[in-house]
Amino acid sequence: MSSIFGRNFKVSIFGESHGKAVGVVLDGLPSGIRLNMEFIEQEMARRRPGKSPLSTLRSESDSFEILSGYFNEATTGTPLCAVIFNSDCASDDYAPMKSLLRPGHVDYTGFVKYGGFNDYRGGGHFSGRLTAPLVFAGAVAKQALQMDNILVGSHVKSICHAEDESFDSANIDENTLKELRNLAIPVLNRDAGEKMAQCILDAKNDRDSVGGVIETAVLNLQPGLGSPFFDSMESCLAHILFSIPAVKGVEFGEGFNITKMRGSKANDAFIIDENKIKTATNYNGGILGGITNGMPVVFRVAIKPTPSIGIQQQTVDFLKNQEATISVKGRHDPCIVPRAVPVIEAAAAIVILDLILERYGEAWTNWKN
Amino acid sequence: MSSIFGRNFKVSIFGESHGKAVGVVLDGLPSGIRLNMEFIEQEMARRRPGKSPLSTLRSESDSFEILSGYFNEATTGTPLCAVIFNSDCASDDYAPMKSLLRPGHVDYTGFVKYGGFNDYRGGGHFSGRLTAPLVFAGAVAKQALQMDNILVGSHVKSICHAEDESFDSANIDENTLKELRNLAIPVLNRDAGEKMAQCILDAKNDRDSVGGVIETAVLNLQPGLGSPFFDSMESCLAHILFSIPAVKGVEFGEGFNITKMRGSKANDAFIIDENKIKTATNYNGGILGGITNGMPVVFRVAIKPTPSIGIQQQTVDFLKNQEATISVKGRHDPCIVPRAVPVIEAAAAIVILDLILERYGEAWTNWKN
Amino acid sequence: MSSIFGRNFKVSIFGESHGKAVGVVLDGLPSGIRLNMEFIEQEMARRRPGKSPLSTLRSESDSFEILSGYFNEATTGTPLCAVIFNSDCASDDYAPMKSLLRPGHVDYTGFVKYGGFNDYRGGGHFSGRLTAPLVFAGAVAKQALQMDNILVGSHVKSICHAEDESFDSANIDENTLKELRNLAIPVLNRDAGEKMAQCILDAKNDRDSVGGVIETAVLNLQPGLGSPFFDSMESCLAHILFSIPAVKGVEFGEGFNITKMRGSKANDAFIIDENKIKTATNYNGGILGGITNGMPVVFRVAIKPTPSIGIQQQTVDFLKNQEATISVKGRHDPCIVPRAVPVIEAAAAIVILDLILERYGEAWTNWKN
Amino acid sequence: MSSIFGRNFKVSIFGESHGKAVGVVLDGLPSGIRLNMEFIEQEMARRRPGKSPLSTLRSESDSFEILSGYFNEATTGTPLCAVIFNSDCASDDYAPMKSLLRPGHVDYTGFVKYGGFNDYRGGGHFSGRLTAPLVFAGAVAKQALQMDNILVGSHVKSICHAEDESFDSANIDENTLKELRNLAIPVLNRDAGEKMAQCILDAKNDRDSVGGVIETAVLNLQPGLGSPFFDSMESCLAHILFSIPAVKGVEFGEGFNITKMRGSKANDAFIIDENKIKTATNYNGGILGGITNGMPVVFRVAIKPTPSIGIQQQTVDFLKNQEATISVKGRHDPCIVPRAVPVIEAAAAIVILDLILERYGEAWTNWKN
Repeated sequence: MSSIFGRNFKVSIFGESHGKAVGVVLDGLPSGIRLNMEFIEQEMARRRPGKSPLSTLRSESDSFEILSGYFNEATTGTPLCAVIFNSDCASDDYAPMKSLLRPGHVDYTGFVKYGGFNDYRGGGHFSGRLTAPLVFAGAVAKQALQMDNILVGSHVKSICHAEDESFDSANIDENTLKELRNLAIPVLNRDAGEKMAQCILDAKNDRDSVGGVIETAVLNLQPGLGSPFFDSMESCLAHILFSIPAVKGVEFGEGFNITKMRGSKANDAFIIDENKIKTATNYNGGILGGITNGMPVVFRVAIKPTPSIGIQQQTVDFLKNQEATISVKGRHDPCIVPRAVPVIEAAAAIVILDLILERYGEAWTNWKN
Repeated sequence: MSSIFGRNFKVSIFGESHGKAVGVVLDGLPSGIRLNMEFIEQEMARRRPGKSPLSTLRSESDSFEILSGYFNEATTGTPLCAVIFNSDCASDDYAPMKSLLRPGHVDYTGFVKYGGFNDYRGGGHFSGRLTAPLVFAGAVAKQALQMDNILVGSHVKSICHAEDESFDSANIDENTLKELRNLAIPVLNRDAGEKMAQCILDAKNDRDSVGGVIETAVLNLQPGLGSPFFDSMESCLAHILFSIPAVKGVEFGEGFNITKMRGSKANDAFIIDENKIKTATNYNGGILGGITNGMPVVFRVAIKPTPSIGIQQQTVDFLKNQEATISVKGRHDPCIVPRAVPVIEAAAAIVILDLILERYGEAWTNWKN
Repeated sequence: MSSIFGRNFKVSIFGESHGKAVGVVLDGLPSGIRLNMEFIEQEMARRRPGKSPLSTLRSESDSFEILSGYFNEATTGTPLCAVIFNSDCASDDYAPMKSLLRPGHVDYTGFVKYGGFNDYRGGGHFSGRLTAPLVFAGAVAKQALQMDNILVGSHVKSICHAEDESFDSANIDENTLKELRNLAIPVLNRDAGEKMAQCILDAKNDRDSVGGVIETAVLNLQPGLGSPFFDSMESCLAHILFSIPAVKGVEFGEGFNITKMRGSKANDAFIIDENKIKTATNYNGGILGGITNGMPVVFRVAIKPTPSIGIQQQTVDFLKNQEATISVKGRHDPCIVPRAVPVIEAAAAIVILDLILERYGEAWTNWKN
Repeated sequence: MSSIFGRNFKVSIFGESHGKAVGVVLDGLPSGIRLNMEFIEQEMARRRPGKSPLSTLRSESDSFEILSGYFNEATTGTPLCAVIFNSDCASDDYAPMKSLLRPGHVDYTGFVKYGGFNDYRGGGHFSGRLTAPLVFAGAVAKQALQMDNILVGSHVKSICHAEDESFDSANIDENTLKELRNLAIPVLNRDAGEKMAQCILDAKNDRDSVGGVIETAVLNLQPGLGSPFFDSMESCLAHILFSIPAVKGVEFGEGFNITKMRGSKANDAFIIDENKIKTATNYNGGILGGITNGMPVVFRVAIKPTPSIGIQQQTVDFLKNQEATISVKGRHDPCIVPRAVPVIEAAAAIVILDLILERYGEAWTNWKN
């Protein structure tokens, strides 16, 4: 509780990694949005496993089926349900639950939370597989946002110690953002991308894993979205971002770094540019007092190293109630950061659509159509 | 929207900096909690302005009046409303709104959001003054949590470049946490505290400001609180934390730093200690899969430098639609980090009580009493 | 839980009958609404006790104080809190709780719900006194609705066996609706009003009480408000109406009577009138499929006789765990139906504003101003 | 908005009458509930069309498929999604929307609400077919409630002018309630059932339709469920009941009839029976101050005649903007009341499980298992 996110645009996800399906219900999605299915498939493909030596070998087509809410090639305004049926479930996953708790994993907390009844196979409902329906929801939200020319894009800021440049947060180019979509590891500096790939392969060779940081930008947002208490733009974004498995930090604008600046620098000076009020810098990440100011919303998300690793680790045998060691078998990503990029973007698109509907109401698309 | 936080324990705040009052309504607060008013006053005092040269000169007694929900020295279970009447409102604040937008402030976004009708005096509803009722709510929540021996405490991790040590997150001592409450700038290392004080005074002398980082710990939490999607413990905490004015980053456990570790280090090994399952380290901050694992919940919050500074800054004259300069007058904190400590703790206590009630229901206190 | 109603316009009430105050926080109230305080006072006066021999002798001025959310004679868009301080609390109410359960009252259920900690004096939080802040909220909502020319009005359909005519639901006149506001017992047929008054006085003489039915109409609603599942216009209205103390039934249009019609009669024929789509009759009460169709929304509410009566009744002595008799002392309304009229209207206005904001967003008033 | 009902146990429905499927997601369903699939199928069969000459000829197997949240023959505690694929969709429904508005139907309001994009085929998302997933949800909720021995049952109180007896609301027998499940038209008095059947067939012969009243009882509820404002037991029940298509009235206990009683009768006297506090009568329907008192919760629901009838009716041609006549073709129920019985019960079971979880928390089943 609660598997439902949002107030005006509600996203409800369900499913388990090795169950029949994962899926999503979109409630409050405005009517009259004509979906480009090819775009949704591209978004799904960006997250899909089994594409390269950098990710898990589990291969899922991730093809979705829309069960409701879409009629005559447009959204109806009533709940849209999409289901992604699971196909490649490794067979020995059906064995009884291992009594060895995997460090960094949900084996222990999931057991306590659900009294031992949760589906533990492949992480069950905690699995990163649940991000597939989230990406579907984000792909739909992105297309709704296009009606207002709003664009979401990202790059990998770092993988372990391999660092990319940062966005020039006051001057982010739409084309740059769009082109990042086509890279296996989306980076601003190609050399950084090669170092990241090497970093991931090194970890893989060591049967270990690495994490990283994703930097995301949202362009062309109108000022006025979000609220002071308690639904600031940062609050709403952080809420969904911290639900994505492995996320351990979120910062906006200069984030933790802004605490090293003095106010005279951290305050973004207001300027007039092409007759619009803007700021000269964007250290506050496009948000003041919880409300968008019209500059790009920029944030960074810290993603921990994948907990499933082949190296032997110390742990506890749950049933025997004694300490033990474990080497996690199976097909795992040595690094999920590249695959997490479309998930982070999806989360952002969902939040922004939610806040736009709060501001302009469910009849918003009626004016757009 | 929405000025209401929480699902089972709902905190609703209202008021403006220079209006008649600020206040809070607590809905879903269980019955039978006997409040120690002295403790609440101490919490309010920790946040109160006007205490030292390190903070603003605005002096507010911050004495609260409970209007409902408290009877025969215990909570009734029906909504508890507390009001803090404003007293020291500087008179010239009632002048017409300055047309000069203060950089880093809500002048622009507040105007757009509310179509020019918001109370701009002293930041209005966006003011840090709204954190006074939040601290009240937190002081009540902390006393409810004491029924389960749950303790919340914090230290200032850094002010600008002045750094304190970090918590030893797997071994945090209750007494240490309690003693931090008595320090003007709560730090683990007293030398760091002196450097921080100097850092603040330097900024003050320069009519500038500084920010910092607060590190908070919650001890004695039962495992099983929080959910995978979308109400992870991190999600719920980050939601309220990012509503607190000036917060620009939140991280759990090692946070952004965990992205530099490999999985073999980031995975906290499970051990058995005094017949309980624990972890040897606590890089994940007491949370796995969004759910508490029984270790201390540890997080850090980045607070930007106070935007109100006397130094001349570049800005825009809103009415004349032209660029201009501004020097912000008035009584401001050169650094709000020390005063923000009880606010951050209050936010944490509110979230944890909310999740406890989700898990154990409104009848929770019936079993405790 | 939960003392908060609404999704886009949230009304949160607090207080107890014999505590310091009752009050309300309005969250999501759009900015820029200029309140006519005299109108609010009139609405409060319609509900106020102590006006006539037909009601309780408790005399409350019910003067309200707005603590926040109102500035320069308009709503700010941030939470508006209004408080009504209690004045006339009979002193012996502070005696220990009577162990005799009053039949028809909340003594028993309130005790169980709150584990004995609730404020039992005068009904505490369950008291009809809590409808005072609801009427305040409704008076504000009504003024917002006036921006769209929406009007809410009511008459007393019956008191015990004394019956008024019904609204001609397809043809309700604005002026008739407005004039009803000025009557002590608002009725369409003055003779019916006299019979009702006699009915109330008879019950009073017998130290007994009577209930009745209120019929309410909302005019000039745009079509399209409400949803099929689960927030139909009927659902939202019934939710708040059934929270009002003593309400035991709610019906829309012909309500229970429609079950005696055949479909060929119950189906309101569509017609074109002044180039607008209307219906010839309005047996469905202006709502089809949970959504307004532009006809008047008409509903009736059943209000049970006041449970506080002087006649001796059979009951249980709670502490002695044995049967007993009771005669309820104190100042009670022999009939609360006339005083309930503005409460019912307030509830309707709150719901409709909530649904308008869902449809047109928080920026709705920006276009109106 | 919103297709999601509930706070602690959330039921989210999706689908359209002639789309691929209808379905439901159950969020907050506690873990460890072992479902009897045969019982669920029986519940579905009670609602299913095509069974008798009294209902529509559309034949749907209504077999459900559980996609998630169920593992090793128990609920997991994570979202349970069930889908019912549509099979018997008449082919000409894919024709362009008729421009003739069906009286009593959602053609007009659905068009306005969704800007013409809603799926109009067979009522789309407004269809009674959406009650199939609701019955599934109710069948699950009923099994959870069995853990506390809580039982929900109903009879048809009236069809048009054919009336059954009423429940003896203070003395409802469990076995009577269970046996009602086996009747095509569940009634207390068999003669009444025959009159009702004749009434339906008469209407069918006239190509017309009839409605009726359902009376439902919930037994063995603990006292203490529900709240004063705004989530009274009546509020929560009425909210979901008024979302069910065709419901136009809801009353509790004696409902509208209680307005004809004086307080001295309407007040149910407290008594002690088998050492428990009960009431001698149950005119208040088991609810005082919005909270259950331990007596049976009894309510009645008014269901209007099916709007789809073959008789010629006056209406408007939407596109030509002129008046016209219409005879609705297709397969329709002359009376949906008998099929609505399990839907009403499902709604009640959902609400009660929601309020039990509010009171006892998500860990409730942990203590039961």
